[in-house]
Amino acid sequence: MDTGSQTSGAWLSREELDAARERMPILYIDAVPVRVDWLGEVTAVGLLLRATERGISRALVSGRVLYHERVREALLRHLDKDLGPLALPRIPSTPQPFTVAEYFPVPGVTPFHDPRQHAVSLAFVVPVEGDCAPQQDALELTWITPAEAKDPALLGEMQGGQGTLLLQGLAHLGC
Amino acid sequence: MDTGSQTSGAWLSREELDAARERMPILYIDAVPVRVDWLGEVTAVGLLLRATERGISRALVSGRVLYHERVREALLRHLDKDLGPLALPRIPSTPQPFTVAEYFPVPGVTPFHDPRQHAVSLAFVVPVEGDCAPQQDALELTWITPAEAKDPALLGEMQGGQGTLLLQGLAHLGC
Amino acid sequence: MDTGSQTSGAWLSREELDAARERMPILYIDAVPVRVDWLGEVTAVGLLLRATERGISRALVSGRVLYHERVREALLRHLDKDLGPLALPRIPSTPQPFTVAEYFPVPGVTPFHDPRQHAVSLAFVVPVEGDCAPQQDALELTWITPAEAKDPALLGEMQGGQGTLLLQGLAHLGC
Amino acid sequence: MDTGSQTSGAWLSREELDAARERMPILYIDAVPVRVDWLGEVTAVGLLLRATERGISRALVSGRVLYHERVREALLRHLDKDLGPLALPRIPSTPQPFTVAEYFPVPGVTPFHDPRQHAVSLAFVVPVEGDCAPQQDALELTWITPAEAKDPALLGEMQGGQGTLLLQGLAHLGC
Repeated sequence: MDTGSQTSGAWLSREELDAARERMPILYIDAVPVRVDWLGEVTAVGLLLRATERGISRALVSGRVLYHERVREALLRHLDKDLGPLALPRIPSTPQPFTVAEYFPVPGVTPFHDPRQHAVSLAFVVPVEGDCAPQQDALELTWITPAEAKDPALLGEMQGGQGTLLLQGLAHLGC
Repeated sequence: MDTGSQTSGAWLSREELDAARERMPILYIDAVPVRVDWLGEVTAVGLLLRATERGISRALVSGRVLYHERVREALLRHLDKDLGPLALPRIPSTPQPFTVAEYFPVPGVTPFHDPRQHAVSLAFVVPVEGDCAPQQDALELTWITPAEAKDPALLGEMQGGQGTLLLQGLAHLGC
Repeated sequence: MDTGSQTSGAWLSREELDAARERMPILYIDAVPVRVDWLGEVTAVGLLLRATERGISRALVSGRVLYHERVREALLRHLDKDLGPLALPRIPSTPQPFTVAEYFPVPGVTPFHDPRQHAVSLAFVVPVEGDCAPQQDALELTWITPAEAKDPALLGEMQGGQGTLLLQGLAHLGC
Repeated sequence: MDTGSQTSGAWLSREELDAARERMPILYIDAVPVRVDWLGEVTAVGLLLRATERGISRALVSGRVLYHERVREALLRHLDKDLGPLALPRIPSTPQPFTVAEYFPVPGVTPFHDPRQHAVSLAFVVPVEGDCAPQQDALELTWITPAEAKDPALLGEMQGGQGTLLLQGLAHLGC
């Protein structure tokens, strides 16, 4: 998950966001970017190499839903931010996420953990059709096959349980 | 949706909650209580008659998810609060909601509307097997058939788009 | 549903298919074609005007899954057949249908009815991006808004419970 | 999957079933039996030790849907047959399966394989609350934790891709 600092300015000061994070669950989205063929079958999964205050790690597209923002708008905004404006993501038509990931500030409550906050994230698989160019704190985007995505070494490079979330997304796709 | 005032005390003062409601989407759950037969088929849907500051209306079980609370704990807490401690709800095993209802403070953005806040609600169908006794601001619980639940007059007694949410839940059940 | 006669030749003679239809549930797919905007929101639903041995009616895209055929191949084949080769359907990545419609030869068992057979149909919403040209027994394709799709008069023109299935698809989309 | 021989007699002779299996996809159900706690969280997964013509293996509850049989009736019938009449399964209220497993007679087309036939199976997670007593060709029922269920050695004892299906079911449950 990104720190959210760059998007929060218009709505909450950094201090206010920090205060809220100690009081309430914060609504997030997670997106698993995929390439699909003409039959809709997934041929590749996109993973970001992201630099955060916690170091460099593999990551999904992830971020806060803002006040007065639709969930689908938040998905598009974070995909645009991380993959660039030419990625052409196909935002799902249904509001039903494939799962809900509950990131707790204390590890072990669920498979998901975020030391900064209690975040509840709606997770979607999003086919992207255009050219992806990582932006801002996303250093690189790597496309890997669904089989490669199950490599424990790679999953181990993902923080906060996002390796588990990636596997859940692949399971939802029938991989 | 209930006002959340009785549950917020331990975590946020009423003023703090009001401030947060003007700044961030608030995470909610909605539950459609149902009676099922031995084949899992829905035989009845439970609707609350609820007294709120906005008047008396038909309502689903609904409420906030608290800081450090699992979504399934919030479901159980709100079902206990509204249906009483002997309702024996069967909390779903999957974290996947049947839909996500986005209640906006401005009407017309989505089918869902809450003048107090921007609430994003994970919606679940929950079979209940025990005896239900409405509690607190829930005045009465009425069991109706799925066919009766489609009556426009009844749906019109539900506020904030919960009539739409009820129909979406019934559609998910194949009714 | 179409009669399946034009696709069955390679696999089953008409007599063999008729015999099987009296003995086993037959696997079908149903597709709700939709137009979506850049946020994935549905702007229109496509309905066929179809001529069948039972007369002219509004219909979804529907048909049998063949021996040795993937469900996603069957979806693509029936969409191609009814909407033409330039429709560019976006076959869903997930094998999870939004519902399963059980068409019984006897009316009243479920909301779905097919006098010819017991068909069990996996139902999907499929965004189509290209130009649609109805083919074969599909006389016309009409795009209507989600709101128009709830018109009881229009739903009444659909046979076998497909009006119910259309409403279930719209509910899944949050409409 | 069981051979289906004991249930097919009333509807199809063994010869007729064999003929149909060479011509059409056959509709199946798969059920993952689970124990859940009062919060709906899965505490154990039930695996059968099954004797088939292909040897002894770990297996899910699985079998054909018969002509004129509801999918939910088929679920209940196969759960009764394998777990005994006191298992008290909670058949899901929604017809939406967590996935659809396509078993092909040729290995490698999908993760699922059945040398006897092309079977398309609707997969459900089913909480069971009563006492389970394996029946007929089900020799034993073993309850294991979700963590144990991910053991590659155990998954390797499952045939036809059911290990993959079990993992997909666990992913759907958020495990």
